Amino acid sequence: MTNDRRNFIKKSVLAGAGLGLFSNQILSAEKENSQLELSNKNEPKSVIRMAFIGVGLRGEVHLEECIKRKDVQVIAICDPDKNSAIPRAKKIIGEYYGEKNKVVEYSNGEEDYINLLNRTDVDAVIISTPWEWHTRQGVLAMKKGIAVGMEVCGAMDLQECWDLVDAHEASGTPFFGLENVCYRRDVMAVLNMVRQNLFGELLHLQGGYQHDLRNVKFNDGKQFYGGGVEFGDKGISEAKWRTNHSVHRNGDLYPTHGLGPVGTMINLNRGNRLISLTSVATKSRGLHKYIVDNGGKDHQNAKVEFKLGDIVTTLLTTANGETIMLSHDTNSPRPYSLNFRVQGTQGLWMDDIDSIYIEGRSPKGHTWEKADAYLSQYDHPLWLKYGKDAEGAGHGGMDFFVIHSFIESLKRNEPCALDVYDLATWYAITPLSEASVAQGGQLQQIPDFTRGRWMSRKPIFALDDRY
Amino acid sequence: MTNDRRNFIKKSVLAGAGLGLFSNQILSAEKENSQLELSNKNEPKSVIRMAFIGVGLRGEVHLEECIKRKDVQVIAICDPDKNSAIPRAKKIIGEYYGEKNKVVEYSNGEEDYINLLNRTDVDAVIISTPWEWHTRQGVLAMKKGIAVGMEVCGAMDLQECWDLVDAHEASGTPFFGLENVCYRRDVMAVLNMVRQNLFGELLHLQGGYQHDLRNVKFNDGKQFYGGGVEFGDKGISEAKWRTNHSVHRNGDLYPTHGLGPVGTMINLNRGNRLISLTSVATKSRGLHKYIVDNGGKDHQNAKVEFKLGDIVTTLLTTANGETIMLSHDTNSPRPYSLNFRVQGTQGLWMDDIDSIYIEGRSPKGHTWEKADAYLSQYDHPLWLKYGKDAEGAGHGGMDFFVIHSFIESLKRNEPCALDVYDLATWYAITPLSEASVAQGGQLQQIPDFTRGRWMSRKPIFALDDRY
Repeated sequence: MTNDRRNFIKKSVLAGAGLGLFSNQILSAEKENSQLELSNKNEPKSVIRMAFIGVGLRGEVHLEECIKRKDVQVIAICDPDKNSAIPRAKKIIGEYYGEKNKVVEYSNGEEDYINLLNRTDVDAVIISTPWEWHTRQGVLAMKKGIAVGMEVCGAMDLQECWDLVDAHEASGTPFFGLENVCYRRDVMAVLNMVRQNLFGELLHLQGGYQHDLRNVKFNDGKQFYGGGVEFGDKGISEAKWRTNHSVHRNGDLYPTHGLGPVGTMINLNRGNRLISLTSVATKSRGLHKYIVDNGGKDHQNAKVEFKLGDIVTTLLTTANGETIMLSHDTNSPRPYSLNFRVQGTQGLWMDDIDSIYIEGRSPKGHTWEKADAYLSQYDHPLWLKYGKDAEGAGHGGMDFFVIHSFIESLKRNEPCALDVYDLATWYAITPLSEASVAQGGQLQQIPDFTRGRWMSRKPIFALDDRY
Repeated sequence: MTNDRRNFIKKSVLAGAGLGLFSNQILSAEKENSQLELSNKNEPKSVIRMAFIGVGLRGEVHLEECIKRKDVQVIAICDPDKNSAIPRAKKIIGEYYGEKNKVVEYSNGEEDYINLLNRTDVDAVIISTPWEWHTRQGVLAMKKGIAVGMEVCGAMDLQECWDLVDAHEASGTPFFGLENVCYRRDVMAVLNMVRQNLFGELLHLQGGYQHDLRNVKFNDGKQFYGGGVEFGDKGISEAKWRTNHSVHRNGDLYPTHGLGPVGTMINLNRGNRLISLTSVATKSRGLHKYIVDNGGKDHQNAKVEFKLGDIVTTLLTTANGETIMLSHDTNSPRPYSLNFRVQGTQGLWMDDIDSIYIEGRSPKGHTWEKADAYLSQYDHPLWLKYGKDAEGAGHGGMDFFVIHSFIESLKRNEPCALDVYDLATWYAITPLSEASVAQGGQLQQIPDFTRGRWMSRKPIFALDDRY
């Protein structure tokens, strides 16, 4: 381990978690081999040496967002999918770095990421793998002193959330939860309105993941989306692994797109925390119906019993007295919607109708106004500054900002805007939701992953126009 | 008791509840005095002799809907409010019946309704009193053999729901739950779509009562709505009694406008039933804030601690595997919305955006259509037939239909379309919601008020264009 990484970790930890513990694993990482020379020993860093574990459809977006930045040097990629993911990623790398680039490939099976993480020349890694790999990969990376940007999902088990928190606190390695919707332009404008007290004291918030994923969960084994009703071994891309979660699990499997943005508005883990949840699930019909409708009742997958209820609804309470409702709705025909609603004592915003009502400001009582003028007026400083840079980036520009924030905080050795406590809290919704559903909707307590520090921690997310 | 009432009751009971028990109170009612001659001994009845307990702002609407019908004879009114309610009701009666009408007035205190219910010439009574009076008045009326049309609210205690069911089953007296939103034109069109399988198998439904009631809960003691921050003894109309429920209770106090319509779509108590609920409430801010904003922080009501959380959200499960989300949101500035959403395996309707998406029919995948064309095409036969008669009736015509249905079922001695089991189930949400909120969101089981008969009972609500 070089001095700059040691300082980098130390400063991050002191600023972020408030602890300064170093594990033996980290200190011993210094002795390990490196394939590339360490070049940058100055603070602040000007270039982040980045690796990618998982370069499927999600990972390749992050790869491209990173590789086009002057402050990122792509060092290595890792994916066991030599047929599609690796060639696609190498094509992107070739476009930016040319044929003679030095990016190293780790594609020798599912465990090859361990070899990547044994490198000592990697500053940070972005993990965009199937959900069940996130924690083990993230924990190992942190132990190795490699900063982690982790894609969203929900935990397989509550313990995974603690594993991530513990690994972060023990190693002091920076950790960023890559929830891109926190950076959606309208969401950030609404966050701005919240902070300027437009809605008064917040009362109730809604979010969710309402996205007809049937042609993501099934394909023909050739094209990424739809065209057939295969999944698992006969599917490719997400159908290969994601659908299996719908076979075996019943709960809110993907809570972060709704909860992440709402969390920034209620100062989650920074003056506030989640207390409890209950979840209920409808019967499971959509995925079976899709198979029968598109593959016929005699298709072998028509025999699969999907455990995931088509719509899972979760109610959360917070320490500060707000309530949150989350929807998970991915098996049915419906227009896309993240179901946002932000309501306070002075008024509310509803995403689905793209409307706002603010008492004393809206011209007509009890009557919605279109949100456009508000969204323009309260456009977040980050979007005002970087909106042009975000053009063309994934998901309407959000993907630029989430990478930008991760990279900028690493360069400055400053705390990550969405940190391990945020991600652990988001991830925890899934196993707790599963437990609640399995118990008919029983109340579940949500752990305090900050171990009490939420009471004194201050908000840091997007406070200015830097990152 | 006359023969026609006996037959009337008997036939209703056999058709409806399936029981034929008569209490001693009913049979002894025959001996009691009557102030008017009994005139109609034929079946079916051509005229219903109607009384009204409670003729405040809500009761007077029912009075007017009834008095203008040729098949209703208004016999008596009852209200302790001699200053406003009684004079206003008498003015309406005068307009229709002239000065020399024979409508009897019971206004001698809060217990005078007992004297009204001792009359033997009353076929039916409509109860539109403060919530805490509903059950005792309805139970007594049923015991006296007087058919009951009962306004909506929630029960004070779960036992009230059983009291109503037991009184109905013991007496065989007809009972109608006056949930007018079941008859809202768009709601009935959507019910029609549900029955024609447009949405496929139902999965998730939403409803609620999102209505800024602050100027209903407070007034100046002179005008009905707003103008001051008084309630209780110093307020008038609803502010006199309704607000007190917000002082003392925390739960979904008004579940029926959301649950009633949703119930007709899922065949509540007729092949399906509610199983469980959880409720959470936000902090209570809106009513105190309204007092301070409009009456100043030194106003005596600024000291009142309101127990009702500003937004109460309830999740319900059903025997058939649907989920239902109800919102109660009456203390905050917001546009009116009953928050309807009806979603099945084939598509969904959302009230707030007045839009529909139906797979295989909507022209563009993943994209909403405005609901208008659907609402026209599937306009319910009742509205097609009676839409003109409903013009000018309260709440956009809904109030015509709810009275129409009550009267028509009484005239024909047929089961009430919204019956005591429906109302008991709706009412039960309130005390169960209060219990859940008080326990931090704990799961509550919802009683089966049909005592198992929901499994064999058949839907009867609005099956044709009659009532």
